[in-house]
Amino acid sequence: MNNTEVFPLKSFDQACHHMVKTHPLVHCMTNDVVQEITADVLLAAGASPAMIIDKHESADFAAIADCLLINVGTLTEERFVAMQLAIEAAQKTNKPWVLDPVASGLLPWRDKMIHQFLNLMPTVVRGNASEILSLAGAGNGGHGVDSADDSRQAVSAARQVALRYHTIVAVTGETDFVTDGKRTLSVVGGDVLTTLVVGTGCSLSALVAAYCAKSDSPLEATAAALTMAKQASEIAASKSTGPGSFHPAYLDALYAIAREHI
Amino acid sequence: MNNTEVFPLKSFDQACHHMVKTHPLVHCMTNDVVQEITADVLLAAGASPAMIIDKHESADFAAIADCLLINVGTLTEERFVAMQLAIEAAQKTNKPWVLDPVASGLLPWRDKMIHQFLNLMPTVVRGNASEILSLAGAGNGGHGVDSADDSRQAVSAARQVALRYHTIVAVTGETDFVTDGKRTLSVVGGDVLTTLVVGTGCSLSALVAAYCAKSDSPLEATAAALTMAKQASEIAASKSTGPGSFHPAYLDALYAIAREHI
Amino acid sequence: MNNTEVFPLKSFDQACHHMVKTHPLVHCMTNDVVQEITADVLLAAGASPAMIIDKHESADFAAIADCLLINVGTLTEERFVAMQLAIEAAQKTNKPWVLDPVASGLLPWRDKMIHQFLNLMPTVVRGNASEILSLAGAGNGGHGVDSADDSRQAVSAARQVALRYHTIVAVTGETDFVTDGKRTLSVVGGDVLTTLVVGTGCSLSALVAAYCAKSDSPLEATAAALTMAKQASEIAASKSTGPGSFHPAYLDALYAIAREHI
Repeated sequence: MNNTEVFPLKSFDQACHHMVKTHPLVHCMTNDVVQEITADVLLAAGASPAMIIDKHESADFAAIADCLLINVGTLTEERFVAMQLAIEAAQKTNKPWVLDPVASGLLPWRDKMIHQFLNLMPTVVRGNASEILSLAGAGNGGHGVDSADDSRQAVSAARQVALRYHTIVAVTGETDFVTDGKRTLSVVGGDVLTTLVVGTGCSLSALVAAYCAKSDSPLEATAAALTMAKQASEIAASKSTGPGSFHPAYLDALYAIAREHI
Repeated sequence: MNNTEVFPLKSFDQACHHMVKTHPLVHCMTNDVVQEITADVLLAAGASPAMIIDKHESADFAAIADCLLINVGTLTEERFVAMQLAIEAAQKTNKPWVLDPVASGLLPWRDKMIHQFLNLMPTVVRGNASEILSLAGAGNGGHGVDSADDSRQAVSAARQVALRYHTIVAVTGETDFVTDGKRTLSVVGGDVLTTLVVGTGCSLSALVAAYCAKSDSPLEATAAALTMAKQASEIAASKSTGPGSFHPAYLDALYAIAREHI
Repeated sequence: MNNTEVFPLKSFDQACHHMVKTHPLVHCMTNDVVQEITADVLLAAGASPAMIIDKHESADFAAIADCLLINVGTLTEERFVAMQLAIEAAQKTNKPWVLDPVASGLLPWRDKMIHQFLNLMPTVVRGNASEILSLAGAGNGGHGVDSADDSRQAVSAARQVALRYHTIVAVTGETDFVTDGKRTLSVVGGDVLTTLVVGTGCSLSALVAAYCAKSDSPLEATAAALTMAKQASEIAASKSTGPGSFHPAYLDALYAIAREHI
């Protein structure tokens, strides 16, 4: 891939140490399917998750937490309102927030909501190739929530989206790319079994939030989160006989990597 | 059991190959408890899950997906509206849909909702013995969401329900039965540990939807889905020391069976 | 710890045998994150879970079930109404109910709701040290949903809360304490890995409800539930390489303990 830099392991080690040491509190407003794996991934990786979702307290909690995750997987009108309040509070208190535009490009109402979120300028947007292509006005939509495209095909779209919304864009897949529109980092590794466990992508967005929480460089922090997930996936795949055994092995691997970086 | 045929393994092999090859997109509108296992079962088995639940987009997605699952486990009024819209869209676009009448016979409001769904004539209804007995106006209700009856006692009720609502009825338990009211197939195997892992029944209804997605015979497709689950349960039980280790082993076994049938 | 008694193993054995034999039906109204682990813990331990959450049927089901769990983790206004109806029905039919005041002390709206629940006099309140301290008007709040305090520091607060609301209070942590304000039982054991798996605390509150369902002594029943969890945690930790493998091992251990006590 032209004009991309491989994210160096040394930078990962520093970012991981920093994340684990600061034990960030991650405010997760995510979909109904991945609540448990999202919390478990954050706990294993050394962060602290909390799911506060009602409009009466989402803003209050966003002001307390160190970062915010917005995932539109099972969005409802009521949840949208609570999310907007949380985003405003996060911005007022200078907390980074991550948008996961699940199934972008597939359904009109969802796309309208996603664009309202994009206009609030998330710190980072993380999605698969089909999702990022659709944010740039390209692509033909994914296969439901799964990508129908290769991440390498979406790098140019990621750069466009990053420049248009003044955000960092991470497009994940066989190779992951993170870009601010000018500089583009790549992360290799991982295993295809990851795609057969629900929530590995959604929980990765939460991990990106955790890494960004107290970082000076959301670009590098995002690349570090992706690196941790790629490393854990490889370790887990080597110990698994299928997606069922991959899931606990993935959490154990995140935990082992976190402990190595204390 | 009189007047039932054992579903042949050869028919299972064909149906499984067909399902895995066509990689159906399953629109899941299911309860809050089993979201993750439902998605994981479909992914391991070779299908593609997506949970789209809001009334603004449930119809749009039902028209895109290959089949629809309606599970009333944690039904709310708002979810009911979104489910009705999805069912209408599935019917207009000739997509099969499966009803899982969780805890039928136990609570008046739920029973009213379930009968409204039944009157929309689902392609398949899958439940445990207590649930199917209650749909036929018999039985005394289950122990919460668990069956208080044996599946063999519910075969006659299943036939009645199938004829009354022009649907396929699957009653699952120690032996599974699938009937269109005239022809009744039986599936044996499985393991009692299955009953100690939440969502094995609910995710089975999702697997039935996946098998029916592009099938000419929903009767045989349903029997094939039940066979896959029974086989995976047996394999998983042989590798487990309890319900905790059964869960990942069950997913691994589904994955192994799917790969054998590509 | 002064003025506390170690809960004897012999009392645990009796209480566990009684719980498993009576197979209580536990009505769980809990948060979105821990639905699956809560159901799985109850099933493994020998009880029967059911999640019925809508205001149209929460009261009807509370009258059928043997006990009720109220957990405020992802509380919404609508859920609050349904919970109140369930509590009233549980009280009218003399069923015990357990309150889990997740993240008490952190957010104003949540605290208002928790105090409305407390005024309905739950049979048992189970929380971590930060939560119980906040109920007594002390402490500085936890780190999100995690405790920032040691359970030993909260024993006096637990006694105050117990006396003020005529309830049993369980404060769990490295050592667990259960008190009715006069008598205080302690339970040791467990493993720190428990804190890295989401829902081990929330599902413990459900297990407390199961033990209280048909017990003459909610104080001892609560201590017995905590003992079962501590024992299972120790067994699971000895077989785990991290929080991922701990989760299935914990369920297997609960299942093994339950079977030993049939």
